[in-house]
This record gives sequence, structure tokens and C-alpha cells, in this order.
Amino acid sequence: MNILITNDDGIYAHGIYAIAKEALEYGNVFVVAPDSEKSAIGHAITMHTPLKAREMNFHGLDSVKAYAVNGTPADCVKLGIEAILKDVNIDIVISGINNGSNLGTDVVYSGTVSAAMEGFILNKPSIAISYDGRDISPDEYKRVAEKAMDFIQNNIESDSMFKDTVTNINFPNMNGKDIKGYKLTRLGIRKYENAFEERRDPRGNIYYWMGGSIRSVIQDPNSDISAVEQGYVSVTPLKSDLTNYEKMEKIADLFKE
Amino acid sequence: MNILITNDDGIYAHGIYAIAKEALEYGNVFVVAPDSEKSAIGHAITMHTPLKAREMNFHGLDSVKAYAVNGTPADCVKLGIEAILKDVNIDIVISGINNGSNLGTDVVYSGTVSAAMEGFILNKPSIAISYDGRDISPDEYKRVAEKAMDFIQNNIESDSMFKDTVTNINFPNMNGKDIKGYKLTRLGIRKYENAFEERRDPRGNIYYWMGGSIRSVIQDPNSDISAVEQGYVSVTPLKSDLTNYEKMEKIADLFKE
Repeated sequence: MNILITNDDGIYAHGIYAIAKEALEYGNVFVVAPDSEKSAIGHAITMHTPLKAREMNFHGLDSVKAYAVNGTPADCVKLGIEAILKDVNIDIVISGINNGSNLGTDVVYSGTVSAAMEGFILNKPSIAISYDGRDISPDEYKRVAEKAMDFIQNNIESDSMFKDTVTNINFPNMNGKDIKGYKLTRLGIRKYENAFEERRDPRGNIYYWMGGSIRSVIQDPNSDISAVEQGYVSVTPLKSDLTNYEKMEKIADLFKE
Repeated sequence: MNILITNDDGIYAHGIYAIAKEALEYGNVFVVAPDSEKSAIGHAITMHTPLKAREMNFHGLDSVKAYAVNGTPADCVKLGIEAILKDVNIDIVISGINNGSNLGTDVVYSGTVSAAMEGFILNKPSIAISYDGRDISPDEYKRVAEKAMDFIQNNIESDSMFKDTVTNINFPNMNGKDIKGYKLTRLGIRKYENAFEERRDPRGNIYYWMGGSIRSVIQDPNSDISAVEQGYVSVTPLKSDLTNYEKMEKIADLFKE
């Protein structure tokens, strides 16, 4: 199995090291990842400046072929599959392990999920992996990586789980405890309040920091947000087709001639 | 009607001027747009650097309140609604008129469409407008703006067209001729070939330009791509929920305990 790994925290992050090291037990590992943090970058791609890919030693793991790219997570997947590794038949794309969850409405902003979406657009089974906690220890990342690769291995053979979809996996904050299991979920709803904080610079000009706190919203019990809150690993299949088919049906009459 | 206008070509572009000028016939116009081109930026938002909004004269239109922002199109909509214009009740968000179409799979990369998506996430009827041609004349933008605002006005009263959805509108390349009409469409499929061109810099290092040409794909006749090719204005309702519900049904058995 040829495994392409990327992330949006950058190639030096603990999370990508953990999943790449674990993935070595399952196949050949190729890492093409941003040379610095690129979170909240969404599905941005770099069309107006050139991309460079620097081959590098990946945290001392000599069997991993790794490239640091001056671009976005989606760039990395595109460049990896269509240029750098075009002679390698990549079997699966993994994006992560992200420092922090990617749940509900927030997935549209996520570099992690967008990288997996790019893999899907290029016809590869693609999986995003995130952890609902910040700055966790390398040991905790190792535990998550073991469970994630085990889940992938158990389900990749069946061919139905990861085929023709993006799979968005979020691990709950385990705090040393075990997970309760895996739940199939839909995306929940994330709303924020007080999204911007207004300040003045030393010259008296206003500037804004994006911030905000999560507003409490009643969640569908089948949502990814609920599952992670309850200590389950959330597994959400995603697609790239944003068409609102229900709306199309509702307004079809307005287009009759 | 309070109309918030943004784009991804930047506040100085011809397209945003044309639509803002025309929108003045229909209500109060507020422009919050990137201070420079931000195309292919997807749904990126700026969380790690501060945002500034500079009030400016908008192409000599004194009745337009306009702000240039050092951020992405999605930032502009978020900052406009939640900070700069938080005391204005914005009735509708318009993103465009974009220099070039935003069709099919490509909408995931589009700053124009992502700005409208952000308006939708903030519960506003939101419309992206793009033109299937590059660097067209101000006169042509004026024609498109007139038609677009006319279409919006005719349908905003009915309440069903723009409510609870993002509306992605693409005008065909009119070449001075008239449009054939409006078609309700789904997103088509866009694939590229030869996505990257490899070059060497003066020091012999490899770099890549993203480029590529559109690969011919058989399109659903109800797709946005087909409609625009045939000279129709394509109208596609979009949503932000990326959940792949069909896949969920197919793999539900794998999660039974």
C-alpha cells in the first residue's frame, strides 16, 4: 500500500510524525506537507506564485520519502499526486493528525479536511484525522495514530467504507482513558459569538482579531459534534458536490418557461 | 434593502464596481472587499494575523460605504456582518462579479463562492455572480450587472429562491449577444490534465507552476457547465453541509455493534 500523508499544521508537527511512523507498519509512506502551519486555509490553492518542494529528512525516519512545500494542504496533495509522485500509484491519502478537531460547519475552513477533499477529487480514497484537544503529548498522538491506522486497515479491504468519498475522522479528547467506540455521523452545526475583538494599534488605527466562542446549539444526536462530546470517535463521510438538491426541487417551478 | 457586496478580485476590480453601481438602484450599498486579488483562496479565513479595514472612496460613488480589508473574501463577509456593519441589518450578500466562471468541481477553490457561503453560514441570503470570460470591458460588466440585479429583484420577493441556500450564478460569455435565458442547474464535473509545469530556477532548483488544461468530461445536461456552454445563465443552489448521506446509508451496517 502506497500512503500519501499531509496535514495543515506543517511538516514539523507532532501529529503528522505520529501517523507517518505508524503508517510505516502498513505500507510505503510518502509525506508531502506544508513547510509551516496552514490552518484555517480552507481549500485554497496556489495559482499565482510558483511552488517548491524541498526533499527533507522526516524526523529521522529514513524510510519515509518527505517533501516540504511552500503551499497549502490542498497544494500538497495535488502536487504530490500529479507531479512529485506521479510515478507512484498512491492508494490512499491521509491528512492529519490535526491539532484540534474539525467538526460540523467548521470543516469548510479546515485545511486538513480540504487536503483530503483534494485527494477525493483526484479519485483517491482520502481520510482526514483530527484530535479534539490542543498541544497533546507525542505519546497521546501515538495512541491516536495506532487506533486510526488499525481502523483504516480493518475497513480498507471491504472497499465500501472509503471508496468514492472523503472520510472525516475526529478522535475525542481521551485524557488517558479509552475511546467508547466508533460512530457514523453527519456534520453538526457550529456557530460562534463575538467573532471579532476590536483593538487599536500604536497609531490609533482600529484592527480586528478573529476569535469568538462556540455558541451552544442543539445538536442532532447523530452529529459528529455529539459523538465526540460523548467520547466516541466520529466517522463522517463527506462529498465535494455542494449542490443543494432539495432546494432545486423546491424552486424548479420558478424556471418553467 | 441593505446590500453587502464583496468579491475575490479585489476592491479595485471592474466587476465589483459594476454590481455595486447597479445595486444602488435597489438599496443601500456597503462594500467590504479584499484590498488585492484573492482568487483560488477557497474558504480560507484569517485567524493568526490581525485584520484591518480601511474606509475608502469607492470608484467615486459617494453613496457607497466601502472598506478595503487585508484578508480573504470569507473574512470580508464575516468582518462586515459581525463587526464593521454590525449595526446595519444586511438583507443580502452579493459576491462578484467575478472575472471568470466558477463552475462545477471548481467552486471548492473559489473565493467568490466561499464569500457567499460565509454569508449563508451567517444566515443571509447570499449570491455569487461570475462571468464566463476574462478581462471583459466595463460596458460588458454593466450589462451583466443590470441583468443580475434584475434577476435578484424579480426573485427576492418570492422568498423561496434565495432563502436558506447559497445561489451560484454564472453568466455565459455573451460576446455582445443576448443571453438565452436562465437555467436551474446542478454542479458539473471539472477535471484538469497536466496540472503542473516543472521548471528550474537560476540556481538549478526545481519549481512548479500550477496550470493545466480542462479535460473533456461528459457533462450532465442539467449541469452548470452545460448551461453556460449553451449560452444560458446558470443558477445553482448550494449548501454548506458536505455530509455524504448516500454513503452513510451504504456503510451503516459496518457500524452496528
